[in-house]
Amino acid sequence: MDRFEVTYRLLADDRNDAEGRAENIALEDTVEIPRDVVPHGYVEDVVLGRVEAVTQESEGIWLARISYHIDAVGCELPQLLNVVLGNASILAGVKAIAIAPNADLRARFPGARYGVSGLRTLTGRRAGGYVCPVIKPQGSSPEKLARLCYLTARAGADIVKEDHGLANQDAAPFRTRVRLCADAVNRANAERADAGETTQSLYFANIGGHGDEVRELALFAQEAGAHGILLIPGLFGFDAMNRLAQDADFTLPIMAHPSHLGPYVLSPDFGYGHGMLFGDLMRLSGADISVFPNHGGRFGFSVDQCGEIVARCHAAEGPGRAILPSPGGGMSLDRLADMKRLYGEDCVYLLGGSLLRFGDNIGEAIGQMRAALDG
Amino acid sequence: MDRFEVTYRLLADDRNDAEGRAENIALEDTVEIPRDVVPHGYVEDVVLGRVEAVTQESEGIWLARISYHIDAVGCELPQLLNVVLGNASILAGVKAIAIAPNADLRARFPGARYGVSGLRTLTGRRAGGYVCPVIKPQGSSPEKLARLCYLTARAGADIVKEDHGLANQDAAPFRTRVRLCADAVNRANAERADAGETTQSLYFANIGGHGDEVRELALFAQEAGAHGILLIPGLFGFDAMNRLAQDADFTLPIMAHPSHLGPYVLSPDFGYGHGMLFGDLMRLSGADISVFPNHGGRFGFSVDQCGEIVARCHAAEGPGRAILPSPGGGMSLDRLADMKRLYGEDCVYLLGGSLLRFGDNIGEAIGQMRAALDG
Repeated sequence: MDRFEVTYRLLADDRNDAEGRAENIALEDTVEIPRDVVPHGYVEDVVLGRVEAVTQESEGIWLARISYHIDAVGCELPQLLNVVLGNASILAGVKAIAIAPNADLRARFPGARYGVSGLRTLTGRRAGGYVCPVIKPQGSSPEKLARLCYLTARAGADIVKEDHGLANQDAAPFRTRVRLCADAVNRANAERADAGETTQSLYFANIGGHGDEVRELALFAQEAGAHGILLIPGLFGFDAMNRLAQDADFTLPIMAHPSHLGPYVLSPDFGYGHGMLFGDLMRLSGADISVFPNHGGRFGFSVDQCGEIVARCHAAEGPGRAILPSPGGGMSLDRLADMKRLYGEDCVYLLGGSLLRFGDNIGEAIGQMRAALDG
Repeated sequence: MDRFEVTYRLLADDRNDAEGRAENIALEDTVEIPRDVVPHGYVEDVVLGRVEAVTQESEGIWLARISYHIDAVGCELPQLLNVVLGNASILAGVKAIAIAPNADLRARFPGARYGVSGLRTLTGRRAGGYVCPVIKPQGSSPEKLARLCYLTARAGADIVKEDHGLANQDAAPFRTRVRLCADAVNRANAERADAGETTQSLYFANIGGHGDEVRELALFAQEAGAHGILLIPGLFGFDAMNRLAQDADFTLPIMAHPSHLGPYVLSPDFGYGHGMLFGDLMRLSGADISVFPNHGGRFGFSVDQCGEIVARCHAAEGPGRAILPSPGGGMSLDRLADMKRLYGEDCVYLLGGSLLRFGDNIGEAIGQMRAALDG
């Protein structure tokens, strides 16, 4: 294939309408000029999007496959998203639901550094879901946060993730906090190793700072002994993640947080499909772990939408490596066994605020999480 | 005021429901833990969002004003957006519609460098709307794009804006293209000056490249003789724009393009209000000019929504300086007189693809735009 394909879900009255809308998307996201002034030759034949197929899905709903040449993109992810759903994101009744990469796209956007299999190696956990407490709240001192890191890591957490709201506030500046938290987790890991455990805890530091400091802060975290970073593509841009994933000097796994991305998936009629955003695009952009709100928590995702995210994180044919889905958002211990049936073993199970109820006994909660996932 | 305020539009059944939802947002976007485990003292008193007022707007629709302390933010824009609408962006029925800055917020996010009054100085145009052709399509050679720049600038365009799809593709790599286009506009300006004209054309180069190259590319454009840059906050992040606006070495005005931002405004029930996104947030993030899709073009914004954007770009009490709205998206010459009645003089009028129909006589179209705005 000399072109990659994007599938759009369209609201349209009939086939004519659907085909017209598809042609408009092909124009809008590439040349953005009326069809009659598209220059013949290279621009028309290569750069312009091409409608490959339009099929009816159900009453009033159509699927359009539109192909694009890598020449319309270049090598940079922002322009790829421009082509996939740039101006078309402003069109009501147009929703991008899947991307089928070709060799060009795979070569330029290779995706995650570790993915599903890499995380097994890094944690040492050969099988079973990953236990992932979230360290919070913001406003706490670095010492208090580091203590939570130590207690949860020591008790067997696979991943110790910072809350995405721990940025660079005065109460716990990024560098001070990350150094203390990394030390705490590494101390716990040393004790676990001394006790003969074959798994270790990975501390994921949340990148909190300016958009143009992401690389510097990520390298700082790596130097300080963190084992991964958390990044918010909805605020820092998907390319910030992609650049870190391809950076020769940065070698840690990346967890993507969904903050500020809600509007892209909340309507069936525009934005991205759940699987496309939290699966395909996260893979394409280099996330090793994709956090999303579990059904039945504080957010309104359905079981089917969550299932689609998991399927697209794991699918063999997606862009880049298969990655780990990570459901969270108001989960509690008693839901874990149930979640395991939907999400399986290759999944990072988040538990945040409710763990704080355990106070200094938070390690017990980690043990209970482990038992629920292994049970 | 020791706190800044955000107004949210909520879907709720009754006052109890509305107040509960407001309290949840205050938690969600700051500490993100259950209310009963929020630590007493600093975290509860300062960091936690505070519901200031909940009022009914109409049947099922409520307005909540929630205040936040700058300590929950720090100095960086990504975390400000986390607080304003981070996780809450994933909550259906929650829409942020206005922000009222306090002194802390104004000090940390001073906004645009030039704004409405600064652009009058830079262009030399004392009064009247700004004529702004858009240079395209992508796939064209740098020479062809530079020729369009020259012809439109020479004919009196106030701003010559690159299409947001001109990124860094092989057909016209960023540096080659920007150098040629800047030269072309500067040559036209020299000829205009020789002819005794007191206005000049500003060439806005589209930043096309990786997310971590924005500053380098913007400084390159400045060195090459560009007079402004176009940036897509929906792809590069709002902080990329904010950082440039506050950068001591970068001195050009910034135009923000709405690509990839559609889903934030398309639903009345989540995301941002039109005025908040294309007015308040663009001002806060340092845009001098805010591009948005005009009503009646290819996109579905209403007259009222466009009017709200203009009002919020211009409002004296908003964050940072007043800025210029810039409606576009499938406009044509015959609509300009009508648009002028809605948008007034402090507005950048975009005209893109339809100009290409004029071919080598594109300068005539610029003259007609000027006449329509001055008539």
